[in-house]
Amino acid sequence: MRMYDLIEKKRDGKNLTQEEIGYFIDGYTNDEIPDYQVSALLMAIYFQDMSEDERAMLTSAMVNSGDTIDLSNIEGIKVDKHSTGGVGDTTTLILAPLVASLGVPVAKMSGRGLGHTGGTIDKLEAVPGFHVEITSAEFIGLVNKNKVAVIGQTGNLTPADKKLYSLRDVTATVNSIPLIASSIMSKKIASGADAIVLDVKTGAGAFMKELDDAKQLAEAMVSIGNRVGRNTMAVISDMSQPLGRAIGNALEVKEAIETLKGQGPKDLTELCLTLGSQMVVLAEKATTIEEARQMLEENIANGKAFEQFKIFLEAQGGDAGVADDPSLLPQATHKIELPANTSGTVSEIVANDFGTAAMMLGAGRATKESEIDLAVGLVLHKKVGDSVKEGESLLTIHANDSDLDKVKEKLYQSITITAGSVDVPSLIYDRITKK
Amino acid sequence: MRMYDLIEKKRDGKNLTQEEIGYFIDGYTNDEIPDYQVSALLMAIYFQDMSEDERAMLTSAMVNSGDTIDLSNIEGIKVDKHSTGGVGDTTTLILAPLVASLGVPVAKMSGRGLGHTGGTIDKLEAVPGFHVEITSAEFIGLVNKNKVAVIGQTGNLTPADKKLYSLRDVTATVNSIPLIASSIMSKKIASGADAIVLDVKTGAGAFMKELDDAKQLAEAMVSIGNRVGRNTMAVISDMSQPLGRAIGNALEVKEAIETLKGQGPKDLTELCLTLGSQMVVLAEKATTIEEARQMLEENIANGKAFEQFKIFLEAQGGDAGVADDPSLLPQATHKIELPANTSGTVSEIVANDFGTAAMMLGAGRATKESEIDLAVGLVLHKKVGDSVKEGESLLTIHANDSDLDKVKEKLYQSITITAGSVDVPSLIYDRITKK
Repeated sequence: MRMYDLIEKKRDGKNLTQEEIGYFIDGYTNDEIPDYQVSALLMAIYFQDMSEDERAMLTSAMVNSGDTIDLSNIEGIKVDKHSTGGVGDTTTLILAPLVASLGVPVAKMSGRGLGHTGGTIDKLEAVPGFHVEITSAEFIGLVNKNKVAVIGQTGNLTPADKKLYSLRDVTATVNSIPLIASSIMSKKIASGADAIVLDVKTGAGAFMKELDDAKQLAEAMVSIGNRVGRNTMAVISDMSQPLGRAIGNALEVKEAIETLKGQGPKDLTELCLTLGSQMVVLAEKATTIEEARQMLEENIANGKAFEQFKIFLEAQGGDAGVADDPSLLPQATHKIELPANTSGTVSEIVANDFGTAAMMLGAGRATKESEIDLAVGLVLHKKVGDSVKEGESLLTIHANDSDLDKVKEKLYQSITITAGSVDVPSLIYDRITKK
Repeated sequence: MRMYDLIEKKRDGKNLTQEEIGYFIDGYTNDEIPDYQVSALLMAIYFQDMSEDERAMLTSAMVNSGDTIDLSNIEGIKVDKHSTGGVGDTTTLILAPLVASLGVPVAKMSGRGLGHTGGTIDKLEAVPGFHVEITSAEFIGLVNKNKVAVIGQTGNLTPADKKLYSLRDVTATVNSIPLIASSIMSKKIASGADAIVLDVKTGAGAFMKELDDAKQLAEAMVSIGNRVGRNTMAVISDMSQPLGRAIGNALEVKEAIETLKGQGPKDLTELCLTLGSQMVVLAEKATTIEEARQMLEENIANGKAFEQFKIFLEAQGGDAGVADDPSLLPQATHKIELPANTSGTVSEIVANDFGTAAMMLGAGRATKESEIDLAVGLVLHKKVGDSVKEGESLLTIHANDSDLDKVKEKLYQSITITAGSVDVPSLIYDRITKK
């Protein structure tokens, strides 16, 4: 077999076989196939796409390129959730204890990562004492005991994906549905999930700016998951404005606590119930989405979800007291309001720019070496569609630095107030299930 | 400027600027841009094509990447001819002295190369004593004195093209009109030609199997030439069967001599007159193609072209006596006829396979290190459309090896005799001039 022939075949719009895809992924992982041939193939895939079979085979080949996590010692169907990423996305903090409270095992492997705020682990570490430095055995034991635990990334998962992603990043081949879908799904599958719920974001603050692209990506991932034997569902949700009200690590933990108590922002609560319903159905704890949703609503109302969160925090060394008193979380020195400079209705809050503002405050990492300030961030008081009076606060800036001119400028540029009527964007655009 | 942005721009079907193309070519030539980014760009060009402006800018950038030959000390308009390559193509050996006999300066830089037979230099070296190891000053002096000389490749011409070609060769991006056209044209322009005549071959024995592709390539090259200030014309000619009757080095020299004396094969003569007419017009020695053709026909009839060939050979140490007595050329030990095994009309002679058969006899180089046998080759007695009786000779094999079973088998497989009527392919499909 020759890499040249694979490039030519894909260039000419033909489908690669399982053997060919395995040859390519193994050869690339082992440094036997050079970058310049792989980048030519990636660009050919960009133009010629891959069939559903090819996408599933590519995903499996990437899973097989490295270690896989064995969760078979955890009882029940392990359902993982993945979000394509947005601003102020606190869903994981809420969903993990929420679905666990219904007996769904949540064995969450998570990262720190770069971005507007920290990753799930960074956020959780805002809880004094909480840590993810536990062994795999402890992790599995905790999930079996409490139905929920979080661990940092372990093992050499999907090295082929890591190598491919680095190459795509410098050859303008990131933005390809089959390559994005196989990359995400290979990581989820290697992490040991039996079933997967996907939250594909769309809008200005999302990777997929257009709804149609988001839908294609969601369908591609659902198809891959089901073809490789992992029941998979997806939700397409709005990320034109930030989700919920909080952007920042400790601030999002506080918002998660409020949501678990039934006092969270409407959009964040709705998205958690939508994603959670799919997780509960895939875990076979309910037979219909409606039934699952009712069960989740009940466990918020009766306090079980909230209690589950406290159990989860304590089991990993965290001070569960924060759940009752969020002021125990790290607090910023300055809390500064941003007044509206005109009256009207909020018509736009550019999610991405708000993320950037949070990062300017120190809430996220620009490079791997950056230190995160867990206390800082933004809390929105107004969202798209809300009316506002001149001088009324649009949001509170939580900062440890008093020089906020640039942040304020950025925020004012990213929020639009109009005199006319405003279309409020839908939160949930679509739900994708197996065909 | 970042290479990433160029890849993305071309991927999205936008045109690159002159500055961007210069950045890419200079950066790649100087090893500042890695292969993997260039191969991604090449694949994007494969799918998105380049505008006529971009093609011309790419060609100029490749010319500027290395040395260029200065022919300004040669009087008159230097017209070069380029063929995209075929089997039994003896045109250069004929055209050089033929157009020189009309006062058109022919400063031919040529190579040895790989292929079914040797390159022009190998063929000329079949003439005892002939050599191309002359200085640039001697070369220019000879052209000024005799209007024709041949020199081996000198200088570091178009290093960008060499690097790009090597990469295209392993990334399935050879077969792209803008890349082929700019590669050929950059070499011709760097070699110092003021004007260029192109012979684009089409058919089974050509790189461009389809007439439509050949036409696109010819139009692309004519456009590039004229955009960068080199008057350029092209002919699209048939290469479904070998051109002329001889395939082999000394055998083609003999055929060239016959053609210069007006006794050559009809197709080879016709192609030389067609290409030669364009060369004479571009050199401004005639105002119309018809006038130029008449002048060429006259110089064949009156022996001036033949005399010019002798002058040319002698000036570079060759024994001009071979022109009067071709038996002085290297002769093969065995001359074996290949009899027709049925009666009928020849309907197909697969040019490429005949080339392979000549190579099996030793007429060409498989690798750079191969030794060429100048004496061996094939001489066809029948061409497509000719009727043949069972047992009559189709061709003569000139060989220095007596074990010819495999060669004969190859030849029989590559020639078809039919009882029905046969369409004889056109020789000249089209002539492309500046729009």
